[in-house]
Amino acid sequence: MKRRDILTGAGALALAGCAGSQEDQAPGAGDGRRFSWRMVTTWPPNFPGVGTGANELARLIERTSGGRIRIRVYAAGELVPAFEVFDAVSRGNAEMGHGAGYYWRGKTEAAQFFTAIPFGLTAVEMNGWLYFGGGLDLYREVYEAFNLVPFPAGNTGVQMGGWFNREINSLSDLRGLRMRIPGLGGEVLQRAGGTPVNLPGGEIFTAMQTRTIDAVEWVGPYNDIAFGLHRVARYYYYPGWQEPGPTLECIIGKRAWDSLPEDLQQIVATCCSAVNDQLTAEYYARNSRSLRQLREEGRIELRQFPDDVLIELKRISKEMVDELAGADPVVARVNQSYRDYLDISSDWMRISEQAMLRARDL
Amino acid sequence: MKRRDILTGAGALALAGCAGSQEDQAPGAGDGRRFSWRMVTTWPPNFPGVGTGANELARLIERTSGGRIRIRVYAAGELVPAFEVFDAVSRGNAEMGHGAGYYWRGKTEAAQFFTAIPFGLTAVEMNGWLYFGGGLDLYREVYEAFNLVPFPAGNTGVQMGGWFNREINSLSDLRGLRMRIPGLGGEVLQRAGGTPVNLPGGEIFTAMQTRTIDAVEWVGPYNDIAFGLHRVARYYYYPGWQEPGPTLECIIGKRAWDSLPEDLQQIVATCCSAVNDQLTAEYYARNSRSLRQLREEGRIELRQFPDDVLIELKRISKEMVDELAGADPVVARVNQSYRDYLDISSDWMRISEQAMLRARDL
Repeated sequence: MKRRDILTGAGALALAGCAGSQEDQAPGAGDGRRFSWRMVTTWPPNFPGVGTGANELARLIERTSGGRIRIRVYAAGELVPAFEVFDAVSRGNAEMGHGAGYYWRGKTEAAQFFTAIPFGLTAVEMNGWLYFGGGLDLYREVYEAFNLVPFPAGNTGVQMGGWFNREINSLSDLRGLRMRIPGLGGEVLQRAGGTPVNLPGGEIFTAMQTRTIDAVEWVGPYNDIAFGLHRVARYYYYPGWQEPGPTLECIIGKRAWDSLPEDLQQIVATCCSAVNDQLTAEYYARNSRSLRQLREEGRIELRQFPDDVLIELKRISKEMVDELAGADPVVARVNQSYRDYLDISSDWMRISEQAMLRARDL
Repeated sequence: MKRRDILTGAGALALAGCAGSQEDQAPGAGDGRRFSWRMVTTWPPNFPGVGTGANELARLIERTSGGRIRIRVYAAGELVPAFEVFDAVSRGNAEMGHGAGYYWRGKTEAAQFFTAIPFGLTAVEMNGWLYFGGGLDLYREVYEAFNLVPFPAGNTGVQMGGWFNREINSLSDLRGLRMRIPGLGGEVLQRAGGTPVNLPGGEIFTAMQTRTIDAVEWVGPYNDIAFGLHRVARYYYYPGWQEPGPTLECIIGKRAWDSLPEDLQQIVATCCSAVNDQLTAEYYARNSRSLRQLREEGRIELRQFPDDVLIELKRISKEMVDELAGADPVVARVNQSYRDYLDISSDWMRISEQAMLRARDL
């Protein structure tokens, strides 16, 4: 089989949801059964973007199915705590969930690749890898062990590097820094001499205000302004090297998924893809608007991380990911697929997006 | 009403398809009626990407609707010629169509903004403008006059600048150049002293081979290789200043649209958004793979247009768009919305995508 054929196969599969398994398992379309599902999420109630996107996904499935699937959405803590969403859906205590794969690295380190890797793929590249580069097949394979069927369902786009009250002029400025930065990004900071702190969103503002922490990485202008972070920090650094385009996920319990007739499976898969389309667009649009707002208010300073800091953070990131891959054959396989895609995509991005955006600025 | 509220309204509308009008007009969901539709397209039969994407859209609607909407897809020339798709759907001779708005500039110059403007918005930015920046509202308003309901349904991403058999070292190298480059890009070339030629895709290879034309801009590596253009030209120039991220469109005749019950309207709208998600990803992935193939074959030379050429082409493009806006109040309004979005989005892209991709390459 040629490379091209493999891609064609993957592409067809992506657009058709889980068509392959449907034809074996589906009890038949339009059989009149109705479903009442619970969606647990990792987000605060109606949290702008990620949280409202989960609400929209539920509404879209309801409307598209003509009410045959009704979904009640639970914010973090309403049915289960944020970080128990994966287990709740895996065990069948809720039919579906919305969150981000890298929250489940305690289950499998491979999950992080389906969200974001420092200095890795951007939003449009994540879609390319997942749908047409073999990523989604691996995503499904990894989650199958947990009785979960995953779908990409949104992306925040490139995040910001974070809010600081001191300038970052060299790597030594990160030493001793207490910064709210979760996941792989946090570990990179630690290896660079900082102290990563994990705090739920709701506690970040106060922690910054009281100087319990020195810095914070949250999302980007749209979500950061909503938390008021521009009122408690002076420097807003870019780029968000730690999260170049995190994919949000919808997970569905295998038993719930298998219980759906084929047309409803197709509806759920299609709605996830539509939300992936729309929520990503929402972040780009609202971040653009919020950045303008920040500039107009003029209270903060936008700063780019110095090149030598970025080079060093990239070196540490690569070292860490290689260690993860070395310790687990599944991670190694996912990492290989991700790296191969990053390699060809970077080459294309240089002469397409990057060259185009540069030309626009000339 | 605050700016933020306007955006929230637009966002909700985008995700819910045309929910506002549904509640007034829909005869009720799940009423058991079945629909047999024709989709006319502007693409050669099963043309990779744009054409197969249209096929996928039809299949997806069929499957998602449990077969309640069946769609027969017609390639260009099978039912109507490529450039009569707009009229055919407008007059109700076909229920829906798939193509690109800029083909209809003879109907209204405003249509071009919903596809691509030279040195304008990229794919992810087009989505941001259309769904959350007021673009889709204008798109609907402009097309309503033709009894059409439009939906974004795919994007080729940044295109390439084209294939040449002579080097482009200065603007004078464009003088006298006979180049296949349609639309606004062609007019820009003309003002720069070249001769734009319009040829259907199927004639491009031979025209290049026989030197009937000197140069050709088609799409990008994936589609260009399929046409064998790398065998009849030496220089492959980037970036594709003329089409930074053309949105493909699905158009539906108003009468056909109004005849659908609410859940089927929602299904069609959602499937368009899903195809917008997937087809864009397909282009990024396959262009990346095809670029690698081109590099490995090593027969051609990749070249970046010189900065002074790009600056001059940008100046001419802006001049042309301003002239169009000056001649038509509808174009003026669409142009203003597009420019406003381009302005805030460019600012955000610089510190997000551009800064991130640059950091990755350090």
